[in-house]
Amino acid sequence: MELFYSAHFQGNNCYLEGDEALHCTRVLRHKIGDTIYIMDGQGSLYECVLTEISRGEAKAEIINATPGWGAHSYNLTLAVCPTKNNERFEWFVEKAVELGVDRIVPLIGDHSERKVYKTDRAKRIALSAAKQSLKAAIPDIAEPVSVRDFIRSSANGLRMIAYCFDGERPRLSVKEALASATPAAPQGASGIITPGVQQDASEISTPGIMQEHGALPDITILIGPEGDFSPEEAALALEAGFLPIHLGPSRLRTETAALAAVTAVYLHFLQ
Amino acid sequence: MELFYSAHFQGNNCYLEGDEALHCTRVLRHKIGDTIYIMDGQGSLYECVLTEISRGEAKAEIINATPGWGAHSYNLTLAVCPTKNNERFEWFVEKAVELGVDRIVPLIGDHSERKVYKTDRAKRIALSAAKQSLKAAIPDIAEPVSVRDFIRSSANGLRMIAYCFDGERPRLSVKEALASATPAAPQGASGIITPGVQQDASEISTPGIMQEHGALPDITILIGPEGDFSPEEAALALEAGFLPIHLGPSRLRTETAALAAVTAVYLHFLQ
Repeated sequence: MELFYSAHFQGNNCYLEGDEALHCTRVLRHKIGDTIYIMDGQGSLYECVLTEISRGEAKAEIINATPGWGAHSYNLTLAVCPTKNNERFEWFVEKAVELGVDRIVPLIGDHSERKVYKTDRAKRIALSAAKQSLKAAIPDIAEPVSVRDFIRSSANGLRMIAYCFDGERPRLSVKEALASATPAAPQGASGIITPGVQQDASEISTPGIMQEHGALPDITILIGPEGDFSPEEAALALEAGFLPIHLGPSRLRTETAALAAVTAVYLHFLQ
Repeated sequence: MELFYSAHFQGNNCYLEGDEALHCTRVLRHKIGDTIYIMDGQGSLYECVLTEISRGEAKAEIINATPGWGAHSYNLTLAVCPTKNNERFEWFVEKAVELGVDRIVPLIGDHSERKVYKTDRAKRIALSAAKQSLKAAIPDIAEPVSVRDFIRSSANGLRMIAYCFDGERPRLSVKEALASATPAAPQGASGIITPGVQQDASEISTPGIMQEHGALPDITILIGPEGDFSPEEAALALEAGFLPIHLGPSRLRTETAALAAVTAVYLHFLQ
């Protein structure tokens, strides 16, 4: 199944532009009358019929709409310090989207080797991974923010920080920490959920996620840079109510730790 | 902590050769009398003191040995069809080693786009990932084998095949399938386990794993190629006693599915 992406909807019509139009009409040679599937990036899938093909644009009529297509029964924010090697972080973005994440926030920490992060490539990767893994919602790739500002702006929900406190402080495993989180909406094998109403509008949720996910458990996990969080950052997170967690005995690279956390959430909610 | 690898042990001495010697003496500038840590790739860590440095070789005296260093309390074999894009499979190898795997078997299936696979690069990646993630055992990268031959040669333990049976057949989630597996040896936060005696010598375990891991639960998971297993291959696996499992609602790429399976095992045994 081939998915196309469009942000341009008008009445009962939907328009493919740029690469999406090119890919549909030139590469895959779709013709007028063909049924195609278009996702709006907000969580809805549209079954459409191609009605017009012009230079660099394709118009399609919406036959059927499925909200929450390929959605999951939680609202997951991964706040991760981008790795020095950009490819490793971009790899994480692709895999996290495949498994299911709602928001990725690039963090700049005291020990970050990468103090600047451009989100354009990660956004493109998130789009193609969402299409490839049949999810109609494109996870939000936030603009970079400092660890301190992210912690200060974070609100409710189950919030965790993976940090090595050198045994000073007891930590739960990510598995134990997730035990309290329960899905809000029934989820079928297709992963389709019934849209609801957001009850807890946390500052770190985007409107898109709020509309899409309804009253889903908000989960936020902080993963530090290669040099880990600074003790000050970790202390600030604990003061702010973040749960100190560990990801098990293995020493994991930043991007591996981040994906292990995403997978732990994915498996926790597995029906 | 910097780990070096050596397969050359003699009495109470250990020899670093080639790149390992170069890295130790030229790059990191270690001098005679320095304490260094050497892993044998079989699961043991040796605290050593450099006693001789010659052109292209370094000799070290063993002060202390720790068996099962960085080991885990299960014996996991991932049998995966290498992806068309080799980088994706090599990425999986690195991440699987970081999390904990004992054997990776490249499978050639009926629908494999890649019919030939050379293991030399994957072996180098497994070594460096083992060193990076502080594990003294280098997982075995087996020579490629056909799906049919692997299934026929597979023996006891918990064996699963991730395959889409189109709902014809009820499947457990990987999480449910793992519920029956329990660790054999106590595992501390350091991940060190007490060596035991292998009771069930399954054909798919290597002698190295048998010595290192003792009576650990043998777990084998089959992951198909981009085109999935053929119905004949899947049927053969079921006849051979493989448990049909699913990895959840998301459509995952081959390497993502394989890593999700490794992570599910890792999290299942998390203390």
